[in-house]
Amino acid sequence: MAVNNSNSIVFIGSGNVATHLAKALSGAGHRVMQVYSRSLENAKLLAEKHGAAYTDNLSEINRDAALYIFAVKDDALSEIAAQMPSTLGAWVHTAGSLPLSVLSCREKDYGVFYPLQTFSKGRELDFAEIPIFIEGDNSETVSFLQEIGQSISSKVTVLSSEKRKYLHLAAVFACNFTNHLYAVASEIVESQGMSFDVLHALISETAAKAKVMNPVDAQTGPAVRFDKSVIQNHQQLLPEEKQREIYTLLSENIHNFAKRK
Amino acid sequence: MAVNNSNSIVFIGSGNVATHLAKALSGAGHRVMQVYSRSLENAKLLAEKHGAAYTDNLSEINRDAALYIFAVKDDALSEIAAQMPSTLGAWVHTAGSLPLSVLSCREKDYGVFYPLQTFSKGRELDFAEIPIFIEGDNSETVSFLQEIGQSISSKVTVLSSEKRKYLHLAAVFACNFTNHLYAVASEIVESQGMSFDVLHALISETAAKAKVMNPVDAQTGPAVRFDKSVIQNHQQLLPEEKQREIYTLLSENIHNFAKRK
Repeated sequence: MAVNNSNSIVFIGSGNVATHLAKALSGAGHRVMQVYSRSLENAKLLAEKHGAAYTDNLSEINRDAALYIFAVKDDALSEIAAQMPSTLGAWVHTAGSLPLSVLSCREKDYGVFYPLQTFSKGRELDFAEIPIFIEGDNSETVSFLQEIGQSISSKVTVLSSEKRKYLHLAAVFACNFTNHLYAVASEIVESQGMSFDVLHALISETAAKAKVMNPVDAQTGPAVRFDKSVIQNHQQLLPEEKQREIYTLLSENIHNFAKRK
Repeated sequence: MAVNNSNSIVFIGSGNVATHLAKALSGAGHRVMQVYSRSLENAKLLAEKHGAAYTDNLSEINRDAALYIFAVKDDALSEIAAQMPSTLGAWVHTAGSLPLSVLSCREKDYGVFYPLQTFSKGRELDFAEIPIFIEGDNSETVSFLQEIGQSISSKVTVLSSEKRKYLHLAAVFACNFTNHLYAVASEIVESQGMSFDVLHALISETAAKAKVMNPVDAQTGPAVRFDKSVIQNHQQLLPEEKQREIYTLLSENIHNFAKRK
């Protein structure tokens, strides 16, 4: 009995990216066929949400799916890809920092499907607003990924590995580093018995402003004019040398940007 | 003819903080009586929105208002305060980084009214959500400022100058430094012919997540595990030495926070 697997997807990996992508793709009518994870328990957890099969053994991967989405840790990807059985459908990875070529052991029909977002368990996301950057080894793969992407997002763009590297670097600044500054700010207010909540309105407005103003023009604060007295006072309040260094470097760089304007 | 000035306010300064505060206070039924600015044109611009008088001469300040709000640059405040005529109503400044004592030339009835937000011209803000931190030289001033604050915000807190210093420092991390990271990210994507828009969804979600998760727990990215290969690749993409240093320091600090968990 022939089964039409033209919209069936196998997930290699069951972490945050796989979980969010599986939900979005499933909601758009694709079929999550199977989930692989090194941890059978994690594979099961994700698979059961979608009535899919699951395994912790790469040799048990179903060969007939239309698409295999690798959503694993960057440093595990090439090893897992090398152990994959040959399959009918295309392979894609979801890593911003890795080139297309990391899947070239597949020889044909492989690509990249990079959703630019920070994924956490338990956060609902509107995938329609998440930009997806795709790349493929040939034009058919690109068209196929474009179709899959457009079924869940209004913002699908073809992007080379070379440019994607820079996009991922920018994302590290706009997300990972930004979040770390929140963490430092949180420590500072908590050290004074205040809740991090006091900074919520400020954080929201700073992010909202970046959507309508160029962040260089929106820059405010003592560093713009390099107000030495405020900067020195602040340095004295920071207990750790590394945080003082971060403060100095960011202030100097803000001042440099302001002078260039 | 006696006029009741019990809710009348004079603004010393006509920048973003004065503009937003005047609008909120006026909307809550207070009367903007007069605006002073070194620039008569700027004083006029703000005053005319509220049918208020304006001047660029401190000796022409109306003496009968209930409250005088100093919203001027930090380094100009003590000089302007020293030149102020004596007045009926209390004086407050709006600076996060300056102590209460900067207005002590007034001797009695002075305080601080610090709205913790980033103010830009042309941005509509919901003042009800903006935390306001107040301080006064005596309990009557504190009660008075509490009343004024609560007329525009649901989040009014009494806070000492000592603690406010730290709050301001935290705000520099959560707002000024964060915005600068947006600026660096913007440069990176634009250098590759992409629009900063591609990062909007990521920036919004990173900020939104900070409202519901501790930012230390929400931390993601290559620095958490100090993934050397990604970090080295990113370093090579950054054209400026200072940005490479910022990248290294933030990555090391993220890793240190993660190890402490």
